[in-house]
Amino acid sequence: MNFSSKLLENAVAEFAKLPGVGQKTALRLVLHLLNQDKQDVERFSTAVTKLRNEIQFCRVCHNISDQPVCEICSSHRRDHSLICVVEDTRDVMAIENTNQFNGVYHVLGGLISPMDGVGPSDLQVDTLVERLKPTDTNEVKEVVFALSATMEGDTTLFYLHKKLKNFNITITTIARGIAFGGELEYVDEITLGRSIATRVPYENSLSK
Amino acid sequence: MNFSSKLLENAVAEFAKLPGVGQKTALRLVLHLLNQDKQDVERFSTAVTKLRNEIQFCRVCHNISDQPVCEICSSHRRDHSLICVVEDTRDVMAIENTNQFNGVYHVLGGLISPMDGVGPSDLQVDTLVERLKPTDTNEVKEVVFALSATMEGDTTLFYLHKKLKNFNITITTIARGIAFGGELEYVDEITLGRSIATRVPYENSLSK
Repeated sequence: MNFSSKLLENAVAEFAKLPGVGQKTALRLVLHLLNQDKQDVERFSTAVTKLRNEIQFCRVCHNISDQPVCEICSSHRRDHSLICVVEDTRDVMAIENTNQFNGVYHVLGGLISPMDGVGPSDLQVDTLVERLKPTDTNEVKEVVFALSATMEGDTTLFYLHKKLKNFNITITTIARGIAFGGELEYVDEITLGRSIATRVPYENSLSK
Repeated sequence: MNFSSKLLENAVAEFAKLPGVGQKTALRLVLHLLNQDKQDVERFSTAVTKLRNEIQFCRVCHNISDQPVCEICSSHRRDHSLICVVEDTRDVMAIENTNQFNGVYHVLGGLISPMDGVGPSDLQVDTLVERLKPTDTNEVKEVVFALSATMEGDTTLFYLHKKLKNFNITITTIARGIAFGGELEYVDEITLGRSIATRVPYENSLSK
Protein backbone atom coordinates (compact mmCIF):
# COMPACT_ATOMS: atom_id res chain seq x y z
CA MET A 1 0.00 0.00 0.00
CA ASN A 2 1.19 3.52 -0.77
CA PHE A 3 0.44 5.83 2.12
CA SER A 4 0.16 9.56 1.65
CA SER A 5 1.58 10.15 5.13
CA LYS A 6 4.37 8.61 7.19
CA LEU A 7 2.36 9.06 10.41
CA LEU A 8 -0.53 7.15 8.88
CA GLU A 9 1.79 4.42 7.66
CA ASN A 10 3.34 4.03 11.12
CA ALA A 11 0.01 3.77 12.88
CA VAL A 12 -1.28 1.24 10.34
CA ALA A 13 1.93 -0.82 10.71
CA GLU A 14 1.46 -0.92 14.50
CA PHE A 15 -2.18 -2.03 14.23
CA ALA A 16 -1.32 -4.62 11.60
CA LYS A 17 0.94 -6.35 14.16
CA LEU A 18 -2.13 -7.29 16.21
CA PRO A 19 -3.34 -10.88 15.74
CA GLY A 20 -5.96 -11.25 13.02
CA VAL A 21 -5.58 -7.66 11.84
CA GLY A 22 -4.35 -7.19 8.26
CA GLN A 23 -3.32 -4.02 6.45
CA LYS A 24 -6.83 -3.16 5.28
CA THR A 25 -8.46 -3.66 8.68
CA ALA A 26 -5.61 -1.73 10.30
CA LEU A 27 -6.21 1.18 7.94
CA ARG A 28 -9.93 1.13 8.70
CA LEU A 29 -9.28 1.19 12.46
CA VAL A 30 -6.69 3.97 12.16
CA LEU A 31 -8.94 6.15 10.01
CA HIS A 32 -11.73 5.60 12.54
CA LEU A 33 -9.45 6.85 15.35
CA LEU A 34 -8.43 9.81 13.18
CA ASN A 35 -12.09 10.84 13.06
CA GLN A 36 -12.45 10.79 16.84
CA ASP A 37 -11.84 13.66 19.26
CA LYS A 38 -8.27 14.14 20.47
CA GLN A 39 -9.29 13.29 24.05
CA ASP A 40 -10.88 10.02 22.95
CA VAL A 41 -7.73 8.96 21.12
CA GLU A 42 -5.65 10.04 24.10
CA ARG A 43 -7.85 7.93 26.37
CA PHE A 44 -7.46 4.96 24.03
CA SER A 45 -3.68 5.05 24.04
CA THR A 46 -3.45 5.84 27.75
CA ALA A 47 -5.61 2.81 28.57
CA VAL A 48 -3.23 0.61 26.57
CA THR A 49 0.01 1.99 28.05
CA LYS A 50 -1.40 2.03 31.57
CA LEU A 51 -2.52 -1.57 31.28
CA ARG A 52 0.92 -2.69 30.14
CA ASN A 53 2.85 -0.67 32.72
CA GLU A 54 0.69 -1.10 35.81
CA ILE A 55 -0.79 -4.55 35.40
CA GLN A 56 -0.23 -6.99 38.25
CA PHE A 57 -0.55 -10.73 38.43
CA CYS A 58 -2.03 -12.47 41.47
CA ARG A 59 0.80 -13.84 43.62
CA VAL A 60 -1.13 -17.06 44.20
CA CYS A 61 -2.88 -18.00 40.94
CA HIS A 62 -1.06 -15.65 38.48
CA ASN A 63 -4.28 -14.37 37.01
CA ILE A 64 -4.39 -10.70 35.95
CA SER A 65 -5.36 -8.64 38.99
CA ASP A 66 -5.33 -5.11 40.41
CA GLN A 67 -4.24 -6.36 43.85
CA PRO A 68 -1.27 -8.51 44.86
CA VAL A 69 -3.73 -11.32 45.62
CA CYS A 70 -6.80 -11.52 43.35
CA GLU A 71 -10.41 -11.47 44.53
CA ILE A 72 -10.94 -15.17 43.89
CA CYS A 73 -7.82 -16.25 45.79
CA SER A 74 -8.63 -13.99 48.75
CA SER A 75 -12.31 -14.99 48.95
CA HIS A 76 -13.40 -17.14 51.92
CA ARG A 77 -16.42 -18.40 50.06
CA ARG A 78 -14.24 -20.23 47.56
CA ASP A 79 -13.18 -23.85 47.98
CA HIS A 80 -9.40 -23.59 48.24
CA SER A 81 -8.96 -27.37 48.20
CA LEU A 82 -10.05 -27.48 44.53
CA ILE A 83 -7.72 -25.92 41.95
CA CYS A 84 -8.61 -25.51 38.28
CA VAL A 85 -5.53 -25.26 36.02
CA VAL A 86 -6.07 -23.10 32.91
CA GLU A 87 -4.01 -21.60 30.11
CA ASP A 88 -4.81 -17.90 30.51
CA THR A 89 -7.12 -15.28 31.96
CA ARG A 90 -9.69 -15.76 29.19
CA ASP A 91 -10.29 -19.30 30.40
CA VAL A 92 -10.83 -18.04 33.96
CA MET A 93 -13.43 -15.59 32.64
CA ALA A 94 -15.15 -18.29 30.56
CA ILE A 95 -15.37 -20.70 33.52
CA GLU A 96 -16.49 -17.94 35.92
CA ASN A 97 -19.31 -17.12 33.49
CA THR A 98 -20.70 -20.66 33.81
CA ASN A 99 -21.27 -20.24 37.58
CA GLN A 100 -20.50 -23.97 37.91
CA PHE A 101 -17.13 -23.73 39.61
CA ASN A 102 -16.51 -22.67 43.18
CA GLY A 103 -12.83 -23.56 43.55
CA VAL A 104 -9.78 -21.45 42.82
CA TYR A 105 -7.60 -21.19 39.73
CA HIS A 106 -4.03 -21.58 38.62
CA VAL A 107 -3.12 -19.71 35.41
CA LEU A 108 -0.21 -21.34 33.57
CA GLY A 109 0.31 -18.40 31.23
CA GLY A 110 0.48 -20.59 28.13
CA LEU A 111 0.79 -24.18 26.99
CA ILE A 112 3.87 -26.26 26.23
CA SER A 113 4.56 -25.77 22.53
CA PRO A 114 8.01 -26.72 21.23
CA MET A 115 7.08 -25.27 17.80
CA ASP A 116 6.71 -21.81 19.37
CA GLY A 117 9.67 -22.32 21.70
CA VAL A 118 7.50 -22.51 24.83
CA GLY A 119 8.78 -25.04 27.36
CA PRO A 120 7.65 -25.93 30.89
CA SER A 121 10.05 -23.36 32.37
CA ASP A 122 8.12 -20.57 30.60
CA LEU A 123 4.93 -21.56 32.42
CA GLN A 124 3.86 -21.30 36.06
CA VAL A 125 4.58 -24.98 36.74
CA ASP A 126 6.87 -24.71 39.76
CA THR A 127 4.44 -22.43 41.57
CA LEU A 128 1.67 -24.96 40.92
CA VAL A 129 3.75 -27.75 42.43
CA GLU A 130 4.49 -25.46 45.39
CA ARG A 131 0.76 -24.83 45.92
CA LEU A 132 0.03 -28.54 46.05
CA LYS A 133 2.45 -29.29 48.90
CA PRO A 134 0.29 -29.89 51.99
CA THR A 135 0.65 -27.31 54.78
CA ASP A 136 -1.06 -26.89 58.17
CA THR A 137 -3.51 -24.33 56.89
CA ASN A 138 -4.31 -25.65 53.46
CA GLU A 139 -4.63 -28.99 51.77
CA VAL A 140 -5.49 -29.33 48.10
CA LYS A 141 -7.74 -32.32 47.41
CA GLU A 142 -8.36 -32.06 43.68
CA VAL A 143 -6.78 -30.48 40.61
CA VAL A 144 -9.01 -30.06 37.55
CA PHE A 145 -7.27 -29.48 34.25
CA ALA A 146 -9.30 -27.25 31.93
CA LEU A 147 -6.95 -27.04 28.95
CA SER A 148 -7.75 -26.82 25.24
CA ALA A 149 -8.24 -30.14 23.46
CA THR A 150 -5.30 -29.44 21.17
CA MET A 151 -1.86 -30.96 20.72
CA GLU A 152 -0.40 -28.26 23.00
CA GLY A 153 -3.10 -28.78 25.63
CA ASP A 154 -2.60 -32.55 25.64
CA THR A 155 1.20 -32.20 25.84
CA THR A 156 0.90 -29.86 28.79
CA LEU A 157 -1.60 -32.15 30.48
CA PHE A 158 0.70 -35.16 29.99
CA TYR A 159 3.68 -33.27 31.41
CA LEU A 160 1.80 -31.91 34.43
CA HIS A 161 0.19 -35.27 35.16
CA LYS A 162 3.65 -36.83 35.43
CA LYS A 163 4.75 -34.02 37.76
CA LEU A 164 1.72 -34.30 40.03
CA LYS A 165 0.96 -38.01 40.16
CA ASN A 166 3.09 -38.58 43.27
CA PHE A 167 1.01 -36.12 45.28
CA ASN A 168 -1.96 -37.58 47.11
CA ILE A 169 -4.38 -35.51 45.04
CA THR A 170 -7.25 -36.41 42.70
CA ILE A 171 -6.39 -35.30 39.17
CA THR A 172 -9.32 -34.72 36.80
CA THR A 173 -9.88 -33.07 33.43
CA ILE A 174 -13.00 -31.37 32.15
CA ALA A 175 -15.32 -33.70 30.20
CA ARG A 176 -14.80 -34.07 26.46
CA GLY A 177 -17.74 -34.93 24.24
CA ILE A 178 -20.38 -33.56 21.97
CA ALA A 179 -21.30 -29.95 22.70
CA PHE A 180 -24.86 -29.06 23.69
CA GLY A 181 -26.75 -28.23 20.51
CA GLY A 182 -24.22 -30.18 18.45
CA GLU A 183 -25.54 -32.34 15.63
CA LEU A 184 -24.22 -35.87 15.64
CA GLU A 185 -23.50 -36.12 11.92
CA TYR A 186 -21.16 -33.14 12.01
CA VAL A 187 -19.11 -34.29 14.99
CA ASP A 188 -15.60 -35.55 14.17
CA GLU A 189 -14.81 -39.24 14.56
CA ILE A 190 -12.43 -38.94 17.50
CA THR A 191 -14.87 -36.93 19.61
CA LEU A 192 -17.77 -39.22 18.72
CA GLY A 193 -15.75 -42.39 19.37
CA ARG A 194 -14.50 -41.09 22.73
CA SER A 195 -17.96 -39.92 23.74
CA ILE A 196 -19.31 -43.44 23.19
CA ALA A 197 -16.42 -45.01 25.09
CA THR A 198 -16.84 -42.62 28.02
CA ARG A 199 -20.65 -42.71 28.09
CA VAL A 200 -22.32 -41.61 31.33
CA PRO A 201 -25.53 -42.70 33.12
CA TYR A 202 -28.50 -40.68 31.85
CA GLU A 203 -29.16 -39.06 35.25
CA ASN A 204 -25.62 -37.65 35.35
CA SER A 205 -25.93 -36.15 31.88
CA LEU A 206 -28.73 -33.76 32.84
CA SER A 207 -27.45 -30.21 33.20
CA LYS A 208 -28.33 -28.61 36.51
CA MET B 1 -17.98 -10.18 30.99
CA ASN B 2 -16.45 -10.13 34.47
CA PHE B 3 -12.93 -8.79 34.39
CA SER B 4 -10.44 -9.58 37.10
CA SER B 5 -8.84 -6.15 36.67
CA LYS B 6 -10.13 -2.63 36.13
CA LEU B 7 -7.14 -1.79 33.92
CA LEU B 8 -7.92 -4.75 31.71
CA GLU B 9 -11.59 -3.81 31.56
CA ASN B 10 -10.75 -0.24 30.54
CA ALA B 11 -8.40 -1.30 27.77
CA VAL B 12 -10.93 -3.83 26.44
CA ALA B 13 -13.68 -1.19 26.53
CA GLU B 14 -11.51 1.19 24.47
CA PHE B 15 -10.69 -1.46 21.87
CA ALA B 16 -14.34 -2.54 21.68
CA LYS B 17 -15.23 0.99 20.49
CA LEU B 18 -13.35 0.36 17.24
CA PRO B 19 -15.55 -0.57 14.27
CA GLY B 20 -16.03 -4.32 13.84
CA VAL B 21 -14.32 -5.14 17.14
CA GLY B 22 -16.49 -6.87 19.75
CA GLN B 23 -15.73 -7.65 23.40
CA LYS B 24 -14.10 -11.00 22.67
CA THR B 25 -11.85 -9.69 19.88
CA ALA B 26 -10.98 -6.68 22.03
CA LEU B 27 -9.92 -8.98 24.87
CA ARG B 28 -7.79 -11.05 22.50
CA LEU B 29 -6.04 -7.93 21.17
CA VAL B 30 -5.47 -6.51 24.66
CA LEU B 31 -4.04 -9.78 25.98
CA HIS B 32 -1.74 -9.89 22.95
CA LEU B 33 -0.46 -6.39 23.77
CA LEU B 34 -0.03 -7.42 27.40
CA ASN B 35 2.37 -10.14 26.24
CA GLN B 36 4.52 -7.70 24.28
CA ASP B 37 7.52 -5.76 25.55
CA LYS B 38 6.83 -2.44 27.24
CA GLN B 39 8.64 -0.54 24.47
CA ASP B 40 6.51 -2.21 21.79
CA VAL B 41 3.30 -1.24 23.55
CA GLU B 42 4.67 2.27 24.08
CA ARG B 43 5.45 2.49 20.36
CA PHE B 44 1.94 1.32 19.53
CA SER B 45 0.20 3.98 21.61
CA THR B 46 2.65 6.70 20.61
CA ALA B 47 1.98 5.99 16.93
CA VAL B 48 -1.74 6.40 17.56
CA THR B 49 -1.52 9.62 19.61
CA LYS B 50 1.07 11.14 17.27
CA LEU B 51 -1.09 10.40 14.24
CA ARG B 52 -4.11 12.10 15.79
CA ASN B 53 -2.21 15.12 17.09
CA GLU B 54 0.16 15.85 14.22
CA ILE B 55 -1.76 14.75 11.16
CA GLN B 56 -2.23 17.34 8.42
CA PHE B 57 -4.59 17.50 5.50
CA CYS B 58 -3.49 18.76 2.08
CA ARG B 59 -4.65 22.36 1.62
CA VAL B 60 -5.71 21.62 -1.95
CA CYS B 61 -7.27 18.16 -2.05
CA HIS B 62 -7.79 17.54 1.71
CA ASN B 63 -6.14 14.15 1.59
CA ILE B 64 -4.08 13.06 4.62
CA SER B 65 -0.57 14.40 4.17
CA ASP B 66 2.63 15.20 6.03
CA GLN B 67 3.09 18.47 4.12
CA PRO B 68 0.73 21.42 3.73
CA VAL B 69 0.33 20.43 0.06
CA CYS B 70 0.43 16.70 -0.67
CA GLU B 71 2.78 14.99 -3.13
CA ILE B 72 0.10 14.41 -5.73
CA CYS B 73 -1.13 18.02 -5.70
CA SER B 74 2.41 19.41 -5.89
CA SER B 75 3.53 17.03 -8.66
CA HIS B 76 4.10 18.51 -12.12
CA ARG B 77 3.67 15.16 -13.78
CA ARG B 78 0.02 15.04 -12.77
CA ASP B 79 -2.79 16.34 -14.95
CA HIS B 80 -4.25 19.15 -12.86
CA SER B 81 -7.14 19.69 -15.28
CA LEU B 82 -8.65 16.33 -14.25
CA ILE B 83 -10.03 16.02 -10.70
CA CYS B 84 -11.27 12.78 -9.19
CA VAL B 85 -13.75 13.31 -6.34
CA VAL B 86 -13.64 10.59 -3.67
CA GLU B 87 -15.03 9.94 -0.20
CA ASP B 88 -11.85 9.41 1.79
CA THR B 89 -8.15 8.64 1.74
CA ARG B 90 -8.75 4.90 1.30
CA ASP B 91 -10.31 5.57 -2.09
CA VAL B 92 -7.28 7.64 -3.13
CA MET B 93 -5.04 4.72 -2.17
CA ALA B 94 -7.23 2.23 -4.05
CA ILE B 95 -7.24 4.33 -7.24
CA GLU B 96 -3.50 5.06 -6.98
CA ASN B 97 -2.89 1.31 -6.80
CA THR B 98 -4.56 0.80 -10.18
CA ASN B 99 -1.98 3.05 -11.95
CA GLN B 100 -4.78 4.08 -14.33
CA PHE B 101 -5.32 7.63 -13.14
CA ASN B 102 -2.96 10.53 -13.71
CA GLY B 103 -5.12 13.41 -12.54
CA VAL B 104 -5.44 14.90 -9.06
CA TYR B 105 -7.94 14.21 -6.27
CA HIS B 106 -10.48 15.95 -4.12
CA VAL B 107 -11.29 14.19 -0.84
CA LEU B 108 -14.79 15.03 0.40
CA GLY B 109 -14.21 13.55 3.85
CA GLY B 110 -17.47 11.61 3.82
CA LEU B 111 -20.77 11.25 1.97
CA ILE B 112 -24.08 13.02 2.50
CA SER B 113 -26.03 10.84 4.91
CA PRO B 114 -29.03 12.42 6.68
CA MET B 115 -29.40 9.26 8.79
CA ASP B 116 -25.96 9.86 10.33
CA GLY B 117 -26.46 13.62 10.48
CA VAL B 118 -23.91 14.32 7.74
CA GLY B 119 -24.94 17.19 5.46
CA PRO B 120 -23.14 18.97 2.59
CA SER B 121 -21.68 21.52 5.01
CA ASP B 122 -19.75 18.72 6.77
CA LEU B 123 -17.98 17.84 3.53
CA GLN B 124 -15.35 19.66 1.46
CA VAL B 125 -17.91 20.89 -1.08
CA ASP B 126 -17.21 24.63 -1.04
CA THR B 127 -13.50 24.06 -1.55
CA LEU B 128 -14.31 21.83 -4.53
CA VAL B 129 -16.45 24.56 -6.10
CA GLU B 130 -13.60 27.01 -5.45
CA ARG B 131 -11.12 24.73 -7.24
CA LEU B 132 -13.32 24.56 -10.32
CA LYS B 133 -13.47 28.33 -10.87
CA PRO B 134 -11.25 29.04 -13.88
CA THR B 135 -8.13 31.11 -13.17
CA ASP B 136 -5.26 32.29 -15.36
CA THR B 137 -2.97 29.49 -14.27
CA ASN B 138 -5.32 26.58 -14.03
CA GLU B 139 -8.41 25.38 -15.79
CA VAL B 140 -10.20 22.20 -14.79
CA LYS B 141 -11.61 20.33 -17.78
CA GLU B 142 -13.13 17.23 -16.20
CA VAL B 143 -14.40 16.05 -12.82
CA VAL B 144 -14.67 12.27 -12.30
CA PHE B 145 -16.85 11.11 -9.43
CA ALA B 146 -15.54 7.90 -7.88
CA LEU B 147 -18.10 7.43 -5.09
CA SER B 148 -19.53 4.21 -3.65
CA ALA B 149 -22.59 2.83 -5.45
CA THR B 150 -24.71 3.22 -2.32
CA MET B 151 -27.64 5.42 -1.36
CA GLU B 152 -25.22 7.89 0.28
CA GLY B 153 -22.92 7.88 -2.74
CA ASP B 154 -25.79 8.51 -5.15
CA THR B 155 -27.22 11.29 -2.97
CA THR B 156 -23.86 13.02 -2.82
CA LEU B 157 -23.40 12.60 -6.57
CA PHE B 158 -26.86 14.09 -7.24
CA TYR B 159 -26.16 17.06 -4.97
CA LEU B 160 -22.73 17.78 -6.39
CA HIS B 161 -23.93 17.41 -9.97
CA LYS B 162 -26.52 20.13 -9.36
CA LYS B 163 -23.81 22.35 -7.85
CA LEU B 164 -21.36 21.85 -10.71
CA LYS B 165 -23.56 21.67 -13.81
CA ASN B 166 -23.29 25.42 -14.51
CA PHE B 167 -19.52 25.20 -14.80
CA ASN B 168 -18.17 24.53 -18.27
CA ILE B 169 -16.69 21.21 -17.14
CA THR B 170 -17.22 17.61 -18.24
CA ILE B 171 -18.71 15.64 -15.37
CA THR B 172 -18.19 11.86 -15.43
CA THR B 173 -18.57 8.96 -13.02
CA ILE B 174 -16.59 5.73 -12.88
CA ALA B 175 -18.18 2.91 -14.87
CA ARG B 176 -20.68 0.64 -13.13
CA GLY B 177 -21.10 -2.93 -14.27
CA ILE B 178 -20.09 -6.50 -13.68
CA ALA B 179 -16.72 -6.88 -11.97
CA PHE B 180 -13.91 -8.74 -13.71
CA GLY B 181 -14.12 -12.37 -12.68
CA GLY B 182 -17.79 -11.92 -11.75
CA GLU B 183 -20.20 -14.69 -12.69
CA LEU B 184 -23.31 -13.54 -14.49
CA GLU B 185 -25.80 -15.66 -12.55
CA TYR B 186 -24.75 -14.14 -9.21
CA VAL B 187 -24.95 -10.50 -10.32
CA ASP B 188 -27.90 -8.54 -8.92
CA GLU B 189 -30.67 -7.47 -11.30
CA ILE B 190 -30.02 -3.73 -11.18
CA THR B 191 -26.33 -4.08 -12.03
CA LEU B 192 -27.06 -6.60 -14.78
CA GLY B 193 -29.89 -4.50 -16.25
CA ARG B 194 -27.80 -1.33 -16.22
CA SER B 195 -24.80 -3.12 -17.70
CA ILE B 196 -26.94 -4.21 -20.67
CA ALA B 197 -28.40 -0.72 -21.10
CA THR B 198 -24.96 0.91 -20.98
CA ARG B 199 -23.19 -1.71 -23.12
CA VAL B 200 -19.92 -0.65 -24.75
CA PRO B 201 -18.24 -1.57 -28.05
CA TYR B 202 -16.08 -4.67 -27.62
CA GLU B 203 -12.84 -2.83 -28.42
CA ASN B 204 -13.47 -0.35 -25.59
CA SER B 205 -14.08 -3.13 -23.05
CA LEU B 206 -10.57 -4.55 -23.32
CA SER B 207 -8.47 -3.62 -20.33
CA LYS B 208 -5.18 -1.99 -21.23
